[in-house]
Amino acid sequence: MSKEIAMANDTTVTVVGNLTADPELRFTPAGVALVKFTVASTPRVFDRASGEYRDGDPLFLTCTAWRDLAEHIAESLAKGTRVVVAGRLRLSRWENAEGEKRSAYGLDVDEVGPSLRFATATVKKMARSRNGDGFTPETPADDPWSTAAPAAA
Amino acid sequence: MSKEIAMANDTTVTVVGNLTADPELRFTPAGVALVKFTVASTPRVFDRASGEYRDGDPLFLTCTAWRDLAEHIAESLAKGTRVVVAGRLRLSRWENAEGEKRSAYGLDVDEVGPSLRFATATVKKMARSRNGDGFTPETPADDPWSTAAPAAA
Amino acid sequence: MSKEIAMANDTTVTVVGNLTADPELRFTPAGVALVKFTVASTPRVFDRASGEYRDGDPLFLTCTAWRDLAEHIAESLAKGTRVVVAGRLRLSRWENAEGEKRSAYGLDVDEVGPSLRFATATVKKMARSRNGDGFTPETPADDPWSTAAPAAA
Amino acid sequence: MSKEIAMANDTTVTVVGNLTADPELRFTPAGVALVKFTVASTPRVFDRASGEYRDGDPLFLTCTAWRDLAEHIAESLAKGTRVVVAGRLRLSRWENAEGEKRSAYGLDVDEVGPSLRFATATVKKMARSRNGDGFTPETPADDPWSTAAPAAA
Repeated sequence: MSKEIAMANDTTVTVVGNLTADPELRFTPAGVALVKFTVASTPRVFDRASGEYRDGDPLFLTCTAWRDLAEHIAESLAKGTRVVVAGRLRLSRWENAEGEKRSAYGLDVDEVGPSLRFATATVKKMARSRNGDGFTPETPADDPWSTAAPAAA
Repeated sequence: MSKEIAMANDTTVTVVGNLTADPELRFTPAGVALVKFTVASTPRVFDRASGEYRDGDPLFLTCTAWRDLAEHIAESLAKGTRVVVAGRLRLSRWENAEGEKRSAYGLDVDEVGPSLRFATATVKKMARSRNGDGFTPETPADDPWSTAAPAAA
Repeated sequence: MSKEIAMANDTTVTVVGNLTADPELRFTPAGVALVKFTVASTPRVFDRASGEYRDGDPLFLTCTAWRDLAEHIAESLAKGTRVVVAGRLRLSRWENAEGEKRSAYGLDVDEVGPSLRFATATVKKMARSRNGDGFTPETPADDPWSTAAPAAA
Repeated sequence: MSKEIAMANDTTVTVVGNLTADPELRFTPAGVALVKFTVASTPRVFDRASGEYRDGDPLFLTCTAWRDLAEHIAESLAKGTRVVVAGRLRLSRWENAEGEKRSAYGLDVDEVGPSLRFATATVKKMARSRNGDGFTPETPADDPWSTAAPAAA
């Protein structure tokens, strides 16, 4: 789509929640895949008086993903799936037909996966398409260096 | 395990990377499932001089999860799987047999899922066990593993 | 104010940007300090074609803080100050007088400080008031402001 | 220092805590300012049995900053100052004189400010030096668009 790269000072967000509907896969006129879905994230609140947990107000975030990631999302996720989404918070602003100023927050998705908290997943690695967006996969390291380090101050 | 709940001022981290080995599932003497795995996260660096990307130094993080989540991880993830992990950064400190101070950073996992960037996933919802309502803390305050002899899986 | 404590699965956000106006300090009818301010955060985008940086679309976030923190913000920050804000993303939903559904995203501030990137700061430690031990939640569960007539500052 | 720019898939962390000592300002042979300081971040834990809060295990993170930011830190912060730090988690690995593998985690600081939770701050804007690192400051927007948006799904 663009030769531009998001660089610095992006507002990154990780949100955990459930899809409110099946993801909608579309294609731009140029044939680029694009998916939108909304995540409902419900904080758990502890009421000290009663000693009980209850649900707080849900946070809804509309998420957008592109290209291979969009296609993988459409194939893998459905209404109700609990997901972990890492992305960048965006604010879109426009004027509607009546000339009123409107704005909407949304998340540009960098990574998303089905949460394993209440589910298992069978993962199938995909061949890379020519539409890949410049992120090569990370090669797994054989064996990490020992993480034991000298004591901190 | 514990009536304590992590409350405030935790240092939350989201890490994206690949498992360096298959997850190791163990059980505490009390029968609580526990899994450990290491994620290698490789930043992508853009060299302005050459106009090319290259891999930066990988970050290795040892991740720990408990109970149902641990079992789902062991069933779903394998060496090389790219994951999105959300958790809390922890520093363990101890003295070794020689009386030297040692420390290790690690991630207490809250949520993890296989990344859909280069893969698809078939998600299977699991019945909830009585051990994991998912909202009690995943990390016992008194780590039942560190002080106990390994139990058979 | 409340016996409730935000517990788990909050969507935490760190935003870096500049105040669009001086912070507005108010007090609830019960005398609790409350401050609101908006942060404009501008991503830096690198255009690979031109080899130049330029500003991306700004993200505006309305931030709310309570009690001692609110008073310290009002004393320390002003229009234009660059800040680092750590908080929790919230979505408020309501119907307006015409019965239309409205919603607004905002940030409940946990911590904020003036950024030292382009400034220095002289820090003055404050005595703690009885209203703010800093570890009780900063946001009353039942927002005392939204339902009440503004109190005089 | 470098024409390289950290690009993507960095592991960003926001840590809130207190400086364990005064920041140490140094200069590289080429005259570039560099500061190191350690932040101790202490989670607050709520014990459901007793209904009381207590301190959890502290997390120590060694933070490194460069250039103007380093100088501003050295001028503004001191042992004990509570700070909000946003940065990228790094793992350094080396062999010591005995040929033993060693590693250390640290935070490359992007932004830091003194926390206003228990303190006020007098902010002084600094002239930009020629050592600036390519981040121009964000110009404060006069007045953000209304954040009221159509209700989410």
